[in-house]
Amino acid sequence: MRNITLLGATGSIGTQTLDVIRRQNEEFKLFAVSANKNWDKLIEIIEEFSPKFAVLMEENAYKKVSNYCRMYNKNTEVLLGMNGLIDISTLEDVDIVVTAVVGMIGIKPTLEAINHGKDIALANKETLVVAGEIIMEAAKKNNVRILPVDSEHGAIFQCLQGNNIKDVDKIILTASGGPFRGRKFNDIANIPVEEALNHPKWNMGSKISIDSATLMNKGLEVIEAHWLFNQCYEDIQVVVHPQSIIHSAVQYKDGSIIAQMASADMRLPIQYALNFPYRKQCVINKIDLTEIGKLTFEKPDMENFPCLGIAIAAGKQGGLMPGILNSANETAVSLYLNNKINFGQISYIVKECLDKFFSSAEVNLDNILDMQSKVTDYIIKKYK
Amino acid sequence: MRNITLLGATGSIGTQTLDVIRRQNEEFKLFAVSANKNWDKLIEIIEEFSPKFAVLMEENAYKKVSNYCRMYNKNTEVLLGMNGLIDISTLEDVDIVVTAVVGMIGIKPTLEAINHGKDIALANKETLVVAGEIIMEAAKKNNVRILPVDSEHGAIFQCLQGNNIKDVDKIILTASGGPFRGRKFNDIANIPVEEALNHPKWNMGSKISIDSATLMNKGLEVIEAHWLFNQCYEDIQVVVHPQSIIHSAVQYKDGSIIAQMASADMRLPIQYALNFPYRKQCVINKIDLTEIGKLTFEKPDMENFPCLGIAIAAGKQGGLMPGILNSANETAVSLYLNNKINFGQISYIVKECLDKFFSSAEVNLDNILDMQSKVTDYIIKKYK
Repeated sequence: MRNITLLGATGSIGTQTLDVIRRQNEEFKLFAVSANKNWDKLIEIIEEFSPKFAVLMEENAYKKVSNYCRMYNKNTEVLLGMNGLIDISTLEDVDIVVTAVVGMIGIKPTLEAINHGKDIALANKETLVVAGEIIMEAAKKNNVRILPVDSEHGAIFQCLQGNNIKDVDKIILTASGGPFRGRKFNDIANIPVEEALNHPKWNMGSKISIDSATLMNKGLEVIEAHWLFNQCYEDIQVVVHPQSIIHSAVQYKDGSIIAQMASADMRLPIQYALNFPYRKQCVINKIDLTEIGKLTFEKPDMENFPCLGIAIAAGKQGGLMPGILNSANETAVSLYLNNKINFGQISYIVKECLDKFFSSAEVNLDNILDMQSKVTDYIIKKYK
Repeated sequence: MRNITLLGATGSIGTQTLDVIRRQNEEFKLFAVSANKNWDKLIEIIEEFSPKFAVLMEENAYKKVSNYCRMYNKNTEVLLGMNGLIDISTLEDVDIVVTAVVGMIGIKPTLEAINHGKDIALANKETLVVAGEIIMEAAKKNNVRILPVDSEHGAIFQCLQGNNIKDVDKIILTASGGPFRGRKFNDIANIPVEEALNHPKWNMGSKISIDSATLMNKGLEVIEAHWLFNQCYEDIQVVVHPQSIIHSAVQYKDGSIIAQMASADMRLPIQYALNFPYRKQCVINKIDLTEIGKLTFEKPDMENFPCLGIAIAAGKQGGLMPGILNSANETAVSLYLNNKINFGQISYIVKECLDKFFSSAEVNLDNILDMQSKVTDYIIKKYK
């Protein structure tokens, strides 16, 4: 029985992680959960899984869950805020921490968990994009495994098993191409939000759907892959594969490509990360290649989707630059979702911030957070 | 430095194995070679690699090479026939035996090598098709690795690395579909030999080219996969994939498919088997998925290519039946190549022999060889 702490239990990845734990309740115990402010969903989770701890980031929500647990005599201890997150990520009984929270909030508890020797199932993009250097160094020092929980990095991780990382020639990161594949920059610059949210293959949150439409998502994944698998940017190839069957692949120096395929269901990489190195019976639909019939591949269109190139360039610059990229993008996407800017402006704003805030300062949590607020304030002041 | 015995050095696989050894001459030493009767090519090999032993199966050829080595003071000892084959497969200095001979002649030296604890790089189809039960039992008993040296089984072997064989759901064996894919049985029943030899993807010997055109080749590979990877026949799916980029794949019980891709070059599986579990720098052309553009998949046409179904049925019957299948096919193909029968008769003759010689006798080398001559004699008498 392994004790799992699930940070971000009420979001999309969190909910699917709970589904995996539910199906393997003899192997996994949901030890602790966190949510931002979704108190009613968290109460449902407490009812079903009886975790030992539950953390809420928002005080009102915390009070509601706290009162509920007292009133109904639940055995769940309710905690508040970042200190609570760190507690449930570092307690001795915890075997693995699943970081499914969205945003910069994931970095600190992940780092603390690593420093306490916990294995990490990582679904929080920001952790590696913004603080990859710090995280991977800590993981190495503490001999901790970072198990990627997203379809692309999960696929790469699977394709590396049974091989030597030194034998890797390049990583092949596949991309669906998003809902606007094949269209021109000017043609989509004023696309309405509803259309941009309509992803062809994956049903995701709105921020990540926009990132997928701009290809920024793939740029962030390139940076994650750089840190996770210790590959230079030249050895990470983005390949557009609209069917989203091959979730990524690895080409080895002998010319062999090992690829991972499956239906588009996040529960597979979650399940694989939690059971690694074993595999458990399918929770997802099995694919049959003869029914799929055809897989296609093309080069990404960096011209009409400039975010991908901008992200890779920021990754190559390193230091605080990926953090600036991420903050600028997050803020710009949020403005777009609120109809304050148009779709085409997202890449312009990100580029503008990378130029304006160019920095070669040291990467540490203080500098990262400081830069984040500078970038965010600047964009909001100028574009809101 | 590992000492390699190469059985069948002058054939297609043998020649490509020499190319791999040539490029890694600091890691591998060609310790011993064999050929059937191709004495002049064997002399070239002796000149280049100075093996300690060379075996010829034919007496005249043996004498020629023997005289040559004596005349030019070569350090290569020349041996004759099956005893020679067994000697060079079992000598203490041998680390790995590559069995690249064609036909039943490969079975005995392979078995002897296994019994002497040598790792086997196996390119001889007959060994597993006809004597899979005996070979795999001996390999298990002697804790010997059977490393498959053909693109499909090599691919499956790669896709299994880092995974537990118990987690396999099914093996996906890909097939190019051969030169007559999409055509009807009656349409190709009288096809001339030259057309049947014209394989779209691989440049191979004539016997295997015909097997590829009838799909018998894929049927034999299903039987090999059954033995090599300990899978029941229901869990081996043949998928037609005309581009021959995915060389085979494994579907796991969690729904994940791991596939191996590369350009169609036998030197890759040879190199992988010899270096396993490491990979060496590419000797083959690296593929780029964005240049390939498209991969397609379809179900095999068992109706118009009956050999595939006939082979799988014989595999399921087990015992001596795959041996009967193999002997009947070998003889029928040879008659077709000599214009004694037409293309459409191959499957009829194989089916006829499986019915006529149906047997549930014990699988041992004597019974296998006895059955082989019965089947061969019968076909030759009736059809020649």
